[in-house]
Amino acid sequence: MPDTISSTVSPLGSLEVLSQHEVNRLRDTSKAGLHDLLRRCALAVLSSGNMTDDSLVLMETYHDFDIEVIQQDRGIRLKVTNAPAEAFVDGKMIRGIRGHLSSVLRDIVYVYNEIQHHSRFDLTTAEGTTNAVFHILRKAGTLKPGRDPSIVVCWGGHSIAREEYEYTKDVGYHLGLRELDICTGCGPGAMKGPMKGANLAHAKQRIQDGRYLGISEPGIIAAEAPNPLVNELVVMPDIEKRLEAFIRLGHGIIVFPGGVGTAEEILYLLGILLHPDNANMRMPVIFTGPASASDYFKRIDEFLVYTLGEQVRSKYRIIVDDPTEVARIMREGIDDVTNFRREHQDAYHYNWRLTIARDFQETFEPTHEAMGSLALHRNQPVHELAANLRRAFSGIVAGNVKENGIRAIEAKGPFSLHAEPELMRRLDELLGSFVAQGRMKPPGRDYEPCYRLV
Amino acid sequence: MPDTISSTVSPLGSLEVLSQHEVNRLRDTSKAGLHDLLRRCALAVLSSGNMTDDSLVLMETYHDFDIEVIQQDRGIRLKVTNAPAEAFVDGKMIRGIRGHLSSVLRDIVYVYNEIQHHSRFDLTTAEGTTNAVFHILRKAGTLKPGRDPSIVVCWGGHSIAREEYEYTKDVGYHLGLRELDICTGCGPGAMKGPMKGANLAHAKQRIQDGRYLGISEPGIIAAEAPNPLVNELVVMPDIEKRLEAFIRLGHGIIVFPGGVGTAEEILYLLGILLHPDNANMRMPVIFTGPASASDYFKRIDEFLVYTLGEQVRSKYRIIVDDPTEVARIMREGIDDVTNFRREHQDAYHYNWRLTIARDFQETFEPTHEAMGSLALHRNQPVHELAANLRRAFSGIVAGNVKENGIRAIEAKGPFSLHAEPELMRRLDELLGSFVAQGRMKPPGRDYEPCYRLV
Amino acid sequence: MPDTISSTVSPLGSLEVLSQHEVNRLRDTSKAGLHDLLRRCALAVLSSGNMTDDSLVLMETYHDFDIEVIQQDRGIRLKVTNAPAEAFVDGKMIRGIRGHLSSVLRDIVYVYNEIQHHSRFDLTTAEGTTNAVFHILRKAGTLKPGRDPSIVVCWGGHSIAREEYEYTKDVGYHLGLRELDICTGCGPGAMKGPMKGANLAHAKQRIQDGRYLGISEPGIIAAEAPNPLVNELVVMPDIEKRLEAFIRLGHGIIVFPGGVGTAEEILYLLGILLHPDNANMRMPVIFTGPASASDYFKRIDEFLVYTLGEQVRSKYRIIVDDPTEVARIMREGIDDVTNFRREHQDAYHYNWRLTIARDFQETFEPTHEAMGSLALHRNQPVHELAANLRRAFSGIVAGNVKENGIRAIEAKGPFSLHAEPELMRRLDELLGSFVAQGRMKPPGRDYEPCYRLV
Amino acid sequence: MPDTISSTVSPLGSLEVLSQHEVNRLRDTSKAGLHDLLRRCALAVLSSGNMTDDSLVLMETYHDFDIEVIQQDRGIRLKVTNAPAEAFVDGKMIRGIRGHLSSVLRDIVYVYNEIQHHSRFDLTTAEGTTNAVFHILRKAGTLKPGRDPSIVVCWGGHSIAREEYEYTKDVGYHLGLRELDICTGCGPGAMKGPMKGANLAHAKQRIQDGRYLGISEPGIIAAEAPNPLVNELVVMPDIEKRLEAFIRLGHGIIVFPGGVGTAEEILYLLGILLHPDNANMRMPVIFTGPASASDYFKRIDEFLVYTLGEQVRSKYRIIVDDPTEVARIMREGIDDVTNFRREHQDAYHYNWRLTIARDFQETFEPTHEAMGSLALHRNQPVHELAANLRRAFSGIVAGNVKENGIRAIEAKGPFSLHAEPELMRRLDELLGSFVAQGRMKPPGRDYEPCYRLV
Repeated sequence: MPDTISSTVSPLGSLEVLSQHEVNRLRDTSKAGLHDLLRRCALAVLSSGNMTDDSLVLMETYHDFDIEVIQQDRGIRLKVTNAPAEAFVDGKMIRGIRGHLSSVLRDIVYVYNEIQHHSRFDLTTAEGTTNAVFHILRKAGTLKPGRDPSIVVCWGGHSIAREEYEYTKDVGYHLGLRELDICTGCGPGAMKGPMKGANLAHAKQRIQDGRYLGISEPGIIAAEAPNPLVNELVVMPDIEKRLEAFIRLGHGIIVFPGGVGTAEEILYLLGILLHPDNANMRMPVIFTGPASASDYFKRIDEFLVYTLGEQVRSKYRIIVDDPTEVARIMREGIDDVTNFRREHQDAYHYNWRLTIARDFQETFEPTHEAMGSLALHRNQPVHELAANLRRAFSGIVAGNVKENGIRAIEAKGPFSLHAEPELMRRLDELLGSFVAQGRMKPPGRDYEPCYRLV
Repeated sequence: MPDTISSTVSPLGSLEVLSQHEVNRLRDTSKAGLHDLLRRCALAVLSSGNMTDDSLVLMETYHDFDIEVIQQDRGIRLKVTNAPAEAFVDGKMIRGIRGHLSSVLRDIVYVYNEIQHHSRFDLTTAEGTTNAVFHILRKAGTLKPGRDPSIVVCWGGHSIAREEYEYTKDVGYHLGLRELDICTGCGPGAMKGPMKGANLAHAKQRIQDGRYLGISEPGIIAAEAPNPLVNELVVMPDIEKRLEAFIRLGHGIIVFPGGVGTAEEILYLLGILLHPDNANMRMPVIFTGPASASDYFKRIDEFLVYTLGEQVRSKYRIIVDDPTEVARIMREGIDDVTNFRREHQDAYHYNWRLTIARDFQETFEPTHEAMGSLALHRNQPVHELAANLRRAFSGIVAGNVKENGIRAIEAKGPFSLHAEPELMRRLDELLGSFVAQGRMKPPGRDYEPCYRLV
Repeated sequence: MPDTISSTVSPLGSLEVLSQHEVNRLRDTSKAGLHDLLRRCALAVLSSGNMTDDSLVLMETYHDFDIEVIQQDRGIRLKVTNAPAEAFVDGKMIRGIRGHLSSVLRDIVYVYNEIQHHSRFDLTTAEGTTNAVFHILRKAGTLKPGRDPSIVVCWGGHSIAREEYEYTKDVGYHLGLRELDICTGCGPGAMKGPMKGANLAHAKQRIQDGRYLGISEPGIIAAEAPNPLVNELVVMPDIEKRLEAFIRLGHGIIVFPGGVGTAEEILYLLGILLHPDNANMRMPVIFTGPASASDYFKRIDEFLVYTLGEQVRSKYRIIVDDPTEVARIMREGIDDVTNFRREHQDAYHYNWRLTIARDFQETFEPTHEAMGSLALHRNQPVHELAANLRRAFSGIVAGNVKENGIRAIEAKGPFSLHAEPELMRRLDELLGSFVAQGRMKPPGRDYEPCYRLV
Repeated sequence: MPDTISSTVSPLGSLEVLSQHEVNRLRDTSKAGLHDLLRRCALAVLSSGNMTDDSLVLMETYHDFDIEVIQQDRGIRLKVTNAPAEAFVDGKMIRGIRGHLSSVLRDIVYVYNEIQHHSRFDLTTAEGTTNAVFHILRKAGTLKPGRDPSIVVCWGGHSIAREEYEYTKDVGYHLGLRELDICTGCGPGAMKGPMKGANLAHAKQRIQDGRYLGISEPGIIAAEAPNPLVNELVVMPDIEKRLEAFIRLGHGIIVFPGGVGTAEEILYLLGILLHPDNANMRMPVIFTGPASASDYFKRIDEFLVYTLGEQVRSKYRIIVDDPTEVARIMREGIDDVTNFRREHQDAYHYNWRLTIARDFQETFEPTHEAMGSLALHRNQPVHELAANLRRAFSGIVAGNVKENGIRAIEAKGPFSLHAEPELMRRLDELLGSFVAQGRMKPPGRDYEPCYRLV
């Protein structure tokens, strides 16, 4: 039996007053209601000090946890019952966590009342989807019109080696000294390190409004619960909108070492940057890690050049073991973005100009059939090959760790991937190197591949 | 030819960043677009120093006025062409007016994109309408959850005698000394005086966040342009929602002398307070004016008691020529409201508990037929009689000053009103006293009644 | 018996925590202590709503008034006993007045503990005096380094005609629209009007940190109690330091109509500006009033040109009945001051560069002998003649209204002033015109001159 | 040759505008001037990233470093020449360091212009000294009247083992979670760890005004340069006033492991708390460290009980290896202090009530004669024995590391300390244990005692 605490708290941050109708929908425990979704996300947020990254285990452990929204004279209050004790200090909820609870509530109310099922947002079109992402971010207070570009998106693994983790802190520190802000996907590892480093640097620079943005979605928030340092949390409705939020909000991107999931993100990003419409887009991208990670990026780089051509190298830069240089180059890159947007009268706060092909907005469902029919050859435009490779990696992630993926593999055996011979050889090599470096989850077990290269 | 200035300004205040789609709709000059509405409201706001209260004249005088929304790096900018020079000081737009422009833009964008034509708000029901009013006010930043009740709604004529105007300033001053805020319908006279007085008192009390709310609607904003003192402007979509906003936002109401329009507002308010559901509602209401106005309220009081019964007196209090006492009693009344809401866990910022019958939410179209068939007798529940009397007064206002009302009278002669004999005699007397006191517009001309009592 | 209230309040504003020693000195009621001084100034501040401008009457009326400083956990508190009821609203002290009490306390503590009787400030030298004035203003928080020049000092009578008072409000309004701040000597009339006007304009311009500085001294604070609009009050130790504070703080000066006291201020100002060291000093000076006051300034102008030469006109500008023009010219003049100081790396917040001859820093004691021996002839440098004329006017003010002056006149008859014949004729004419215009106090009585021109 | 940068920066923080006289004194390079003092302290602050803790080495390394104060339009600017490059990021000075420069300037200006050589502060009396300490802290903005007690003073060694350092971070983290602030003596080790931990916790608690006070003095600031995390730096004029500042400001005290210097601080503190006047004083004191430090505190405890009696244990609490418990107990202790002060109407911001005997305010000059004549026996009041023991430890610190102490030892051999036999034995044992634990500086060399127990 875990320690739990029951308490009633006021919201904190950008959650506004709610209408009676909105409060009622949140209370509604029936199928159509939002209560269950709220309960799951709230528990994830309250468990951020917890080490479980398994949503199911969490729900079982705190099976009698509940959250209720109460209307009072000065606005609403949140009543939590049997919440994880780690979210509290001497019986009082940590204010950062209180802020996250309020953010979760805000986004659920907004998305489910004003985005979905409304004729206003046609989510089957690129334009409608981009507009919906904009509205969710605006409601969350994430778009700050008066502010200079400063958002560095950091990607990378959430279970990385100690040395790599310390390196991410160091990079964050040097970014923070240069008055840059951090945006990650929440969670531990490469998502937490940069924020911790930047927080220290911001204190030294007397920056009181440093931003630590965490962008999550309901399916992953339990596995990657927001660290309380996150001072702006947004819960996007799904994975694709979360990825779109990253690249429309971010003014630069840093990729730390990770596994096949990080490879998927890299292909997502490069697939978009290689789209002909984006040829002149400014977007500084740096792959970086400590000396021990140099092989990781070398392999990735080789694979990218083979599949997407030499030109792909113009889209990123690899810097090994030099946090100061990473921060300096990123600062320059973001100054360049600032000039570009000023010249083109583009908004600083949202990159409307970037073209994202529908391929990258639509969900990919990794069935055996879908995986088997992916076109993995170089006889197509590079951004289309990138999209297909991303799907392949996405399927492997699912086969490795997601519930429905694992079940499919158990039932039908590994996915068969069809590719050109040379491409197949290189893909095999890359994935093999991930296995060898222990970057295929779960660690501590021999990795049994969920795919076959045919 | 009036003096005009062309300029480009940044928004000010609670307007957030706009999406490309929202900017495009505002630019759209076709029928379906919002540009024309924006242009008319913007011109009204820019003319607040102007003495014309005729919307048509204003549009003709500044026929080449235009406003355009431009997207730039740090957000949008507003470009005005040939705007009234009074809105500027040495070529720079007065910041209060700049704030109003932004508010107009915000409300037009919100109402027309997110309220109207959406399944989410069923504007044919009481609940849906009340919910829509809430959402518009919330978006405008008007609902401030952390704040104690403090909003005094002030009603009364916009063209009143000098002595009465000075009196409204005096009342505002004593309200302001007691840390109360002012909400009116914008415009001059009794809508401006209380704000001016309160602003001086707030300075003496070192209150920097005093609120001067102006609630308008597109049809009246030109005639009653917001004084630049108004620091929160909301443009509701129509008259009925504007009235509902007043009584759900306000924590107390003061009625200064006015004409038949003010009588209409009194009947609207009392019709609602007399609804059986509202029997226990706390809402301090004070009728007040200088000694010279005592006859005005005496007549109103007699008429109300005759038509709605002795009990109506429990809903208001008449105080003549004593601004300090008015402010003291209002302060006590609002403290009482505060206690009541705390006990019942009602929100401070929006009076959800108040029942407003559909009668009071629906527009009344004052045709000859509709006027002729109003049930003006005491053989019905008092709140229904109040609703019908309000409609009668509303029709007389239209017949006196509104374009369609005047045209109807010209074509078909005065409205016929059918009433019980004694009620008719008293109504005749009341209206006659308004004429005698010069409260029937337009002043300076003999008043020719637009109605006949049958 | 006047209405009184006893209450304990917290300080407000720039008063810092006090040491035990400072608290003890304030409590000390013996001769050496500060308690009596504090009590007198505190009563003046609490009586600002009062119409008595006679310090003695005030002390008698509230003979049992007292103030005590109490040390508590969160700092000190001020306990007032039998204070004038006008300083309170429903039993709570008006916050503006609370702020003034704190300012009085701050300045008394500082001046008497850290300025006087300290070797550090040699008050017998120009440099030491100027340094002391700087330190008092700094402690009061009046010197704000980050702020652009904006302080317009307004001088003029405190008992002026209604039309003149309305005109000062109007000028203040147009100054406020141009983002200028107001500094006066506290009190009613021309000292209050510009603040009231500027406060309204600042509200329209959404300026929340508008400054309304009142600079007083213990001898005059009872007669010219600070209006609660004053949001920065400084109590200088004597008249000469008060005058020096005005011209080192102010970035421009406006003179409204007044009496012989205003003439004294004009000669003080011009005597300094005519000093050869100040030949290149930028300091916009405007004499202004409504049409009815045009004769007043015409007489002054003629007298100045005769006594100080045609060149004196280069130091001021007379504008009649045009508030907008006054404000426009003042704005331009202050922009010019800004440029001048930037070029010369002079501080914006204190005019160190201005030379003030010792003549203007030393107190003039208007005895019969001193008045009789003033050198009133044109055979001396103009700034010295200005100094002597200022002394003559100062003596007449004392003979008219100050206690020791009146007693001296009663005992020995009018002062004899010796002057060149033509200068005497013109002086006679000027003073005669003040009498004719009713600008010699007290109004409502025939004026019996306290001087003879010999 | 070290990397250096020359730059001109604006002040940051609580430094106010300076008078011409103050600027001139700072520029004065003659003996009487302050320039040299400013230069030394400024260099220390700019070298905070540096590892040298030797003031002399620092001055030699940056022998051409200089700082100059320049008067400009918006106030003063600081021009540094050949400053250590570590104080800058991409050519811009780190804002925290800029703030420290401003604090140094503020305190030098204030102490040397307004405290020293002034009749107002009689520094030969306890009362005068305490008053001077109050004034210096007040000028620094350290005394914040509206704030609840929250200051935890942390003492301990500045060169401690890694494990001990991590432990101080952990304690700081748990203090920060409980909304407590940290005050240390600046520098690394136990002075930096708690701030780092608290900064992280404050971020999680969304506390933006967390306080990290560093209290230094000119003699030690080079050896213990303030970490840029310190957001309030005060430079007291000497060691004794620095110690007095700690215990009059602090609401609770935590002692981490250290060497003989820490033992000196413990005896200073207990000597004061054991004074009969302070019998009822509330002051939570906790000695704490990781498990590896338990022996350190056991030895100290035994020595204290033997010398000062069993009652001394009522003044402190030892907690080993439990950061959460330390923080919980400290929070309770500070709540108790809050209640005590409220009941007694004592100021929260400065502990006036504490009696500090002159013994503890006067400088102890550790000559051979003074050391030899210390009364080290138990036949005296315990607080006097504590004072003498403190002096003994102070002398040993000087003999170990301070320039004049080392020279004295070189010239005349070790100090002779005369004590009762048993006391001597125990003192020997205690000092021996410090040597054995490597807590006698400098590490890495065999320790040769600078004292003999006779």
